[in-house]
Amino acid sequence: MDTKQVAKETAKVLQSYLTYQAVQMVIKQLSETNPPLGIWLRQFSSNNRIQDGEAYLRDLMGEKKDLVLRILTVREHLAEEMLDFMPEMVRTGIQQANIEHRRQMLERMTQTQDPSSIDPNDVTHPESDINDSPD
Amino acid sequence: MDTKQVAKETAKVLQSYLTYQAVQMVIKQLSETNPPLGIWLRQFSSNNRIQDGEAYLRDLMGEKKDLVLRILTVREHLAEEMLDFMPEMVRTGIQQANIEHRRQMLERMTQTQDPSSIDPNDVTHPESDINDSPD
Repeated sequence: MDTKQVAKETAKVLQSYLTYQAVQMVIKQLSETNPPLGIWLRQFSSNNRIQDGEAYLRDLMGEKKDLVLRILTVREHLAEEMLDFMPEMVRTGIQQANIEHRRQMLERMTQTQDPSSIDPNDVTHPESDINDSPD
Repeated sequence: MDTKQVAKETAKVLQSYLTYQAVQMVIKQLSETNPPLGIWLRQFSSNNRIQDGEAYLRDLMGEKKDLVLRILTVREHLAEEMLDFMPEMVRTGIQQANIEHRRQMLERMTQTQDPSSIDPNDVTHPESDINDSPD
C-alpha cells in the first residue's frame, strides 16, 4: 500500500476543507459587519469553486485582496485550534463506526441462521414469502 | 467562532475520505486477485455514493459482507499509519500556501505601482504581443 501518497492526498483534502470552513466563517462575520460584501463572497464561493482551496484563493486575489488575507488568517487560526485533535477524533470515530458495522453484520448473520426471524426487508430470499408470523 | 462544531465536521469529512481511500485500495488489490469482484466494487462505488462513508458501508453490507469487513480493516490500518502525521503535514501545507499567496499579492501590488514591470503572462495586456526575447 502506498500510504505516503495517500497521506499527501489526504492532507491536501484537509487543507481545502479548512479553506472552505474559513470562507464560511468569514461570510458569517461579514453578514454582520458588511452584508453586501458577505453576499458578494457567498456568490463568489458558490458552484463548487472551492473544491481546490488554493486555486480558489488565487482567483479571489484577482478580485478582493483583503478578503484573501482575512481567509488566510482564519484558516491558520482554525488549523492551530483543531488539527492536534483530529487524529484522536477520527480514530475514535472509525473505531465506533467499526463496532457498529460489525454489530449490524452479526445481527444479519444471526437472522440468516434462523430463517424464522428473517426480516422480509433484508436482502431477497426465495423463502421470504413464507408467512410464519405467529398471529 | 464555533471551532468545536467545525472540528466535528472536519473529522467526519476526514473519516469519509479515509473510507474512500480504503475502497480504492481494496479495488486495486482485487484487480490482481479477483478482477470480476474488483470491477463489481468499482461500479458499486461510483456515482459519488461514497460521499458519506458510513452510509456507503451500510449499503455495501446488504450486498457483500466480506468486502465491508475488508474495507473496515484497510481503513483502520490507514488511520493508524497516517493520522498522526496529518496535523504537521496540513500545518506545513497551510504555512507554505500562505507564504506563496502573500508573495503573489505583494507582486501584484508592486506591479500596480510600477507598470513597466508588468508580467505579460499576468492578466490581459494590449502590450503582451511585444516580442522582446533576446534571440
